Amino acid sequence: MKESKPETSEIFGKKKSVLIANVVSGNKPVDIFIDASETITDIGQDIRKRHRGEAEFIIDGIGALALPGLSNTHTHAAMSLLRGYADDMILQDWLSQKIWPLEAHLTADDVYWGTKLACLEMIRTGTTAFNDMYFQMESAAKAVDEAGIRALLCYGFIDLGDAEKREHECRATEALAAHIKKMNNPRIHAAAGPHAPYTVSPEGLKWCAEFSKEQHIPLHIHLSETEKEVNDCISQHGKRPAALLDACGVLTSTTIAAHGCWLDDAECALLGKRGVSVSHNPASNMKLATHRALPYPQLAGAGANVCLGTDGCASNNNLDMFEEMKIAALLQKFFWNDPTVLPAPAALLMATTNGAKALGFGAGILAAGAPADIILISNRTPCNTPLHNAASNLVYSCSGAAVETTICNGRFLMLDREIPGEHEILAHAAQAASSLVKRAQTPV
Amino acid sequence: MKESKPETSEIFGKKKSVLIANVVSGNKPVDIFIDASETITDIGQDIRKRHRGEAEFIIDGIGALALPGLSNTHTHAAMSLLRGYADDMILQDWLSQKIWPLEAHLTADDVYWGTKLACLEMIRTGTTAFNDMYFQMESAAKAVDEAGIRALLCYGFIDLGDAEKREHECRATEALAAHIKKMNNPRIHAAAGPHAPYTVSPEGLKWCAEFSKEQHIPLHIHLSETEKEVNDCISQHGKRPAALLDACGVLTSTTIAAHGCWLDDAECALLGKRGVSVSHNPASNMKLATHRALPYPQLAGAGANVCLGTDGCASNNNLDMFEEMKIAALLQKFFWNDPTVLPAPAALLMATTNGAKALGFGAGILAAGAPADIILISNRTPCNTPLHNAASNLVYSCSGAAVETTICNGRFLMLDREIPGEHEILAHAAQAASSLVKRAQTPV
Repeated sequence: MKESKPETSEIFGKKKSVLIANVVSGNKPVDIFIDASETITDIGQDIRKRHRGEAEFIIDGIGALALPGLSNTHTHAAMSLLRGYADDMILQDWLSQKIWPLEAHLTADDVYWGTKLACLEMIRTGTTAFNDMYFQMESAAKAVDEAGIRALLCYGFIDLGDAEKREHECRATEALAAHIKKMNNPRIHAAAGPHAPYTVSPEGLKWCAEFSKEQHIPLHIHLSETEKEVNDCISQHGKRPAALLDACGVLTSTTIAAHGCWLDDAECALLGKRGVSVSHNPASNMKLATHRALPYPQLAGAGANVCLGTDGCASNNNLDMFEEMKIAALLQKFFWNDPTVLPAPAALLMATTNGAKALGFGAGILAAGAPADIILISNRTPCNTPLHNAASNLVYSCSGAAVETTICNGRFLMLDREIPGEHEILAHAAQAASSLVKRAQTPV
Repeated sequence: MKESKPETSEIFGKKKSVLIANVVSGNKPVDIFIDASETITDIGQDIRKRHRGEAEFIIDGIGALALPGLSNTHTHAAMSLLRGYADDMILQDWLSQKIWPLEAHLTADDVYWGTKLACLEMIRTGTTAFNDMYFQMESAAKAVDEAGIRALLCYGFIDLGDAEKREHECRATEALAAHIKKMNNPRIHAAAGPHAPYTVSPEGLKWCAEFSKEQHIPLHIHLSETEKEVNDCISQHGKRPAALLDACGVLTSTTIAAHGCWLDDAECALLGKRGVSVSHNPASNMKLATHRALPYPQLAGAGANVCLGTDGCASNNNLDMFEEMKIAALLQKFFWNDPTVLPAPAALLMATTNGAKALGFGAGILAAGAPADIILISNRTPCNTPLHNAASNLVYSCSGAAVETTICNGRFLMLDREIPGEHEILAHAAQAASSLVKRAQTPV
């Protein structure tokens, strides 16, 4: 697909002026020019003539579909090491017998390699920004820094109502925010990360809301994934989870709430009023049998910013946002008994514009001046043949494997499916996962 | 991945003795030897030493996962030309305003190119046998013959209670069976194809059942996809669809019934007793909002042979059986509110052993003497890293894009993702689709 094929060593990770000719965006043929910067310099029909002279490289897209890089608005990236470790179990058994015992042995090095693996998978499947909640987040930040994509990183704050534990979580949250500020990498932002209304006390929730406001950083939380947590919240606090969060100041236009399966109509209206971003995680919800789908029609109707996430690899088990778009569109139609709910263009918006808005990096659109976060999807595959309707093919027919080229912040991270250093990352991550399982099975 | 790399012209479509070394089957490392025949000659650990001398080619699998080629037990292959033509609509509008008007213009040539495209997509995503119902089936048979995979082909028999129409459908069914017998291709079998209880009269159903019995060929039918057709059947015939089919002799161990969303417990028991194969089509059912999932636990419990299908590309919109396995496992857990329903190994069986049993080609297992229908799935990808559990990764993490090599009936159809003639098929199919839409939009 290259007109003047760049050598691997010439293009990857370098600042170069590149003209991407002959791609399709919004059903129109366009060329894209990036002048060795982090943003799109020019985009439009036949602009190749204007920029041909100044481009160090000219890449012929041969009709590939161009999209803004996708945004995964809820995941636990390092859980890629747990992919396939335990499935098909009751939620509580799965957590207490499998996931938590393994996580207890996770080292900073494991989180580093798990996040490297996750970033590799995201680059391969067209995701250029993600919203992550986990621990050992300095290691995650290092992995994201090296990978070249964007991430909003938070430490999963859990106090279980214990004041001493809360102090520890506040310090850990502050330390991560300070660390990320010091990194001074425009691709990496910190967030406050109160885990969920059922694992964080109202005091903890209020502290996180305050911290987020003071530091001008987003807030990332789990909300109403299961019916049980909603019932428990009503028993314990006398109100439903969204009302509890609102009373603690948690619901703002820089808040990303994940799951939301059991939100009722009043909660949807409240989230819409506050301008909250709600991350739909359909594959995880189905796999863990939440038994109710996110009320997408109500949330979208109320004006909430509904976006899309994969959740962690232990409960999905991949990070492919193309697959997630399809499963979202299918689940919404099936559960709400209406094939017109969440049509393909709306699913595509969830993964692009809405997701980018939630993450706050200013990406999610292909326009001059916007971040040069671009993916190219091959049109010369069965999944894009015929091409009656690009949005339909992207959502219902393609998987992330149709992505050929991934650019983030003006740098090429994958070109014609080649990612530098892929084999080393796969080998190290496999080794880390296997050693983790061995450690967890060895009685101390 | 090749030790002695065959040239494209040497390996594709030729009878060659091939040793596939160093792959993983059922969690064990094995080698596979095919002695220039249609079946697996030998399979086992370290058998490479025994066959190295006689193999014309030795392919190093480098740890790839080997599976029997997958079986897609319900589709309308040529509808690949309608991929993305119309989505997100109410079923009746979608059919009457979009699908039927386009199908009215389909020529034999369209069905040929649509089936070629479908076979290409199936080869690329690891499906080596499929169950097809459509029209212009002589053209479909020609496409399958050339593609090198297996298919059970039927003419979609629709009489709408009209005796004259029924005569025509009987002759068309007989003609296809005679045509396929004459082709004498062991990869292509005919079936009787009464479309559904709501489109075929009891007389038509009885004729199809008789014809299937006389000719020793399977029978392929749609059953209880929507709630409306079940209610209509009760109003019209005084019994539910499965009971009606049973009264017409349609339910046997060589019957494949597709969809089955609205089967009740008594119908599940009846289908189990008759040994019917039931093809679960979760993506299509969700996209068209059937609002109830196949009662997998009841059907499997009753002893029915539950297998998996994609349905046609207009209602899915692809033919990727890996994606279908995942969506099946997710939908079953979600709808029946139990994360232990349809675990990964059972979903894998639906797409391999059960599907192969339904189609009747004797495939679906990797063993000496079994048909050499084999796919190799790369283990050097994020979706198979780490590899804690192969069945889990294959069902929940991989898409069909992880398939590297596809062999059917002892012939290589794809090697290291290369399929001869792919670009020509894509170009012809795109051209056929675009010309079809133009014809359909031109008033006569």
